[in-house]
Amino acid sequence: MTNKTFKFEIVYQSTKSRARVGRIHTPHGIIDTPNFVGVGTNGTLKALDNVLLSTIDMQLMFCNTYHLMIQPGADVVEQAGGIHQFINRKQPIITDSGGFQVFSLAYGGVADEIKSKGTKKNASSVLKITEEGVIFRSYKDGTRLLLTPETSIRAQKKIGADIMISFDELPPYHITTDKLRRSFDRTHRWEKRSLDTHLLHPSDQALYAVIHGGIDKALRKQSCAILRDQAFDGFAIGGSVGKNREEMFEMLEFVMPELPTDKPNHLLGIGDLESVPKMVPLGIDTFDSSHPTKAARHGLLFTKQGHLRLNKSGNSTRFEPIEHDCTCYTCKHYTLAYLSHLLKAHEPAILTLATIHNVHFMMDMMRLYREAILRGDI
Amino acid sequence: MTNKTFKFEIVYQSTKSRARVGRIHTPHGIIDTPNFVGVGTNGTLKALDNVLLSTIDMQLMFCNTYHLMIQPGADVVEQAGGIHQFINRKQPIITDSGGFQVFSLAYGGVADEIKSKGTKKNASSVLKITEEGVIFRSYKDGTRLLLTPETSIRAQKKIGADIMISFDELPPYHITTDKLRRSFDRTHRWEKRSLDTHLLHPSDQALYAVIHGGIDKALRKQSCAILRDQAFDGFAIGGSVGKNREEMFEMLEFVMPELPTDKPNHLLGIGDLESVPKMVPLGIDTFDSSHPTKAARHGLLFTKQGHLRLNKSGNSTRFEPIEHDCTCYTCKHYTLAYLSHLLKAHEPAILTLATIHNVHFMMDMMRLYREAILRGDI
Repeated sequence: MTNKTFKFEIVYQSTKSRARVGRIHTPHGIIDTPNFVGVGTNGTLKALDNVLLSTIDMQLMFCNTYHLMIQPGADVVEQAGGIHQFINRKQPIITDSGGFQVFSLAYGGVADEIKSKGTKKNASSVLKITEEGVIFRSYKDGTRLLLTPETSIRAQKKIGADIMISFDELPPYHITTDKLRRSFDRTHRWEKRSLDTHLLHPSDQALYAVIHGGIDKALRKQSCAILRDQAFDGFAIGGSVGKNREEMFEMLEFVMPELPTDKPNHLLGIGDLESVPKMVPLGIDTFDSSHPTKAARHGLLFTKQGHLRLNKSGNSTRFEPIEHDCTCYTCKHYTLAYLSHLLKAHEPAILTLATIHNVHFMMDMMRLYREAILRGDI
Repeated sequence: MTNKTFKFEIVYQSTKSRARVGRIHTPHGIIDTPNFVGVGTNGTLKALDNVLLSTIDMQLMFCNTYHLMIQPGADVVEQAGGIHQFINRKQPIITDSGGFQVFSLAYGGVADEIKSKGTKKNASSVLKITEEGVIFRSYKDGTRLLLTPETSIRAQKKIGADIMISFDELPPYHITTDKLRRSFDRTHRWEKRSLDTHLLHPSDQALYAVIHGGIDKALRKQSCAILRDQAFDGFAIGGSVGKNREEMFEMLEFVMPELPTDKPNHLLGIGDLESVPKMVPLGIDTFDSSHPTKAARHGLLFTKQGHLRLNKSGNSTRFEPIEHDCTCYTCKHYTLAYLSHLLKAHEPAILTLATIHNVHFMMDMMRLYREAILRGDI
């Protein structure tokens, strides 16, 4: 472990599956696991300010170092007294390394890249990958920027989240074995340099490694072996885990037993409602996804009966909450009829209200999962 | 007076000017005057839900009948139990007649029409004006709709705001004396029919007349004479009052003494910070404007020192509230640095936070005006 404040406590290990209930202790409080992590790229969930968000008890927020480095800049966040102070959030925050965005902006995201069969969408944003790091162009003003393990960790330290993530390369799904291997080796050297940079000036922050190896099981196993022996505080699962849900779960079933059980793990960027029931028995502790907030902004509301499309005509006269037993701000105060009216009238207030409901739904669902594990049902 | 719940009480009449402090009693509580009325076209301020808005104590909200008739429809609002229930607002609401939108969509708004010198922007939306009313096309689906004094008042009764406004025609600024006269006569027949329709089924709702006459003082005077003898509960000042602020104030100085002092008056659609100090001494009781909310969405914040442009580079490191003595939700919780970051990062949360501040500023400013009148300063 790289610091003393960060601690992972396993409350209960299922005997039926790898599912477990845990508590991640951080400088800004506890994260009950398994749990959903909302994406607040620029230091806020889309359309939901952090004080109103605090009524939901979303225990961990995922912020993007790449975005924060470009706007407002890591120095400004540091000057503000760190990210929590800057954005007025009292609860834990995790930042990524920035690597994901650099590469996903180049390839247009994992899903897009898979669809495009490897054709680069915006190749010019990544100018060069060297042993040192990656040179890319800022989407904001075209400036040439160098991102390395050292600059990423230094930026993450200025930002000051509770959990940081090592700098890694995101190799595309469509890649030759040879190129994957070269990327794999470099990524693990970059992660080691990330850890070394962190340990030079240790702080209250924790640092997660990122498990790589693409869709090659031998490489994934080797990645776990390389990283579990280093002083990382936890493990994120990154890179392309598969081109569809089946491939992803086959890989996760293979990878999860290779990870040490006494450290928390995080699945990067997956959190759709179909995947969660399969992730929990695998022992995934936390996972981030912008799906619940993005769905909300498109008028897709989460309910125990499945997705509810707000713009369906029948909703116009449903003078009742989205869900009768939901205790969220939106359900306590507004009816489906009014929410569907706001959507149809293109009123921005709907973005906030729908987002609150979906994030609250995720929090509630994860609480039920934790209870089910404790009861021995999973 | 058309009903018993509605009452206007003059708390203090200045001896220095026509300024007065009053209280409008409505079924949903008191409106202290003079006061600013925020525009919630579709039953919400833009980007601010009504529960969060309720922390600001904005005592009167202006909703647009035209928009509510088209979406979700007056029947749906009635089914919901009326507008307060539908949108979850406990405090008073005023609706206009729908006439303004029909004509302003045709002419593209008063300001646009003045600039365009009378060229119709979207002439096809108003299909025909007859003695009966106006036939127009719905912007939503192209349906032909007939709006008359009777249908407007019936819709406003279904909507159920505390204060309704008579159906009138909005003649363009550029109009011949002859056409203005014809419009003037018809408007006053329409207003009489509005009142008659209201009195057929009187309710807790109040009904304001609209003073017309364009920029012709003799007509304005005649309008006051025609309308003050009828059982209206208050008076709105409508139509083109002038092509600029000077012309408007010259006209208002002329019109205000023609209105009965024992009934409340409302200035339609004017509320920029430069106009308010001139409006108050004239005895204007309420005025609605979308300026404070629109300015907020463009990153223009109101302060006692004048407008503050959020995207000015200096704000990036101002780790302090917009105004130190402001008690609004935004100033209590966030710094200028963070707000300017949200704006630059195009985060929708800024729309909500900036709106809260500007509306709170207006409420605070109007409270200070009332105090100044009571002290004898205005």
